[in-house]
Amino acid sequence: MTESGEPRRGRGRPRRDAVEDGPGARERILLAARSEFGERGYDRASVRGIAKRAKVDPSLVHHYFASKEGVFEAAMEVNIAPAMDIPQLFLADAQTDIGERLTRFVFGIWEHALTREPLLAMVRSAVNNETAAAIFRRMITRRVLKRVTPALSGPDAELRVELAVAQLVGTAMLRYLIKLEPVASADVDELIAQLAPVVQYHLTGTPPTPRTQNA
Amino acid sequence: MTESGEPRRGRGRPRRDAVEDGPGARERILLAARSEFGERGYDRASVRGIAKRAKVDPSLVHHYFASKEGVFEAAMEVNIAPAMDIPQLFLADAQTDIGERLTRFVFGIWEHALTREPLLAMVRSAVNNETAAAIFRRMITRRVLKRVTPALSGPDAELRVELAVAQLVGTAMLRYLIKLEPVASADVDELIAQLAPVVQYHLTGTPPTPRTQNA
Repeated sequence: MTESGEPRRGRGRPRRDAVEDGPGARERILLAARSEFGERGYDRASVRGIAKRAKVDPSLVHHYFASKEGVFEAAMEVNIAPAMDIPQLFLADAQTDIGERLTRFVFGIWEHALTREPLLAMVRSAVNNETAAAIFRRMITRRVLKRVTPALSGPDAELRVELAVAQLVGTAMLRYLIKLEPVASADVDELIAQLAPVVQYHLTGTPPTPRTQNA
Repeated sequence: MTESGEPRRGRGRPRRDAVEDGPGARERILLAARSEFGERGYDRASVRGIAKRAKVDPSLVHHYFASKEGVFEAAMEVNIAPAMDIPQLFLADAQTDIGERLTRFVFGIWEHALTREPLLAMVRSAVNNETAAAIFRRMITRRVLKRVTPALSGPDAELRVELAVAQLVGTAMLRYLIKLEPVASADVDELIAQLAPVVQYHLTGTPPTPRTQNA
């Protein structure tokens, strides 16, 4: 468990970069975890790599989070919470313009690297690893489905929320991960204008107004 | 480069499982590549692993496909072609029911493990690796955009095809990779019924009929 590339040190000589527990250690570990999982993906990330980035002993990571799974879930909760905490405001008048508001809110998160990166790390990890997928499922279920579904009506409300999520996540995948043109470089307001009516339709059943076909 | 678990053999005694070049070798390599990339993802797959599965020498893989990138692209082309070769028939009357036809066609591919697995391998690889993403981009551009876009009208037809693709790929991701409920277990005809109008709207601008909200 020693880090290779470290200069040799004598017994009792404090490690230059190994900072002990103390104020901010937990937060530093979570930030380090965001980078580690973001750059390496769940499978290749390690508690040791996170500890090294946070300049703490790996045992401290285990102390706070028990396991790689634990630190992944905590890091994703901390970093993804803003993206999933849909303002209650949106849900009060779901029937009118929830599609527009929700789509705009989601792109507000995606369009900033600081909030986009942890989400991309989550998506990358979840498509490749069953543990990460289970954590992703729990987060969507707790944070999105349990919040949005009650504002809607109909027996298949949960399924329809997921199809709206699928439209948004699929677009994000093509735009930010696959970088397929023209969606990768499309103006974000243009994307919101195209997607909001579809999200509204999924959630409430209200159809978009017809688009002129030969514009 | 020897395979462990092999019985020892004397000099000059042919390896039981090392089949030389010959009829079917190229096809066997492509089948092996499908399994290797499917199970290990692009990053962790290797030419050696593919050769071992195909029971050929790694040099034969290099001979046919030059590189890991080459064998990946060829394997994906072979295995994904049926999923991307949208029947020309669909496109003749794009304005009427292309959404329904295309959605049904895509789920026909996804719902069978034999055709689903290579697509999932492609998606998994493309979200994690830039080389695989570039190959995915080329395939979507050549096989989907160049075929579907000319059947549509409007200056943003390519973008709209991609947003339809995003809806379908996003749904597939949640259903088959993330396995989020209820979309993971939803009846496929129910999914097609929900998604076809959205695909139709993206492609042609024709809005769905309103859905009863308190069904």
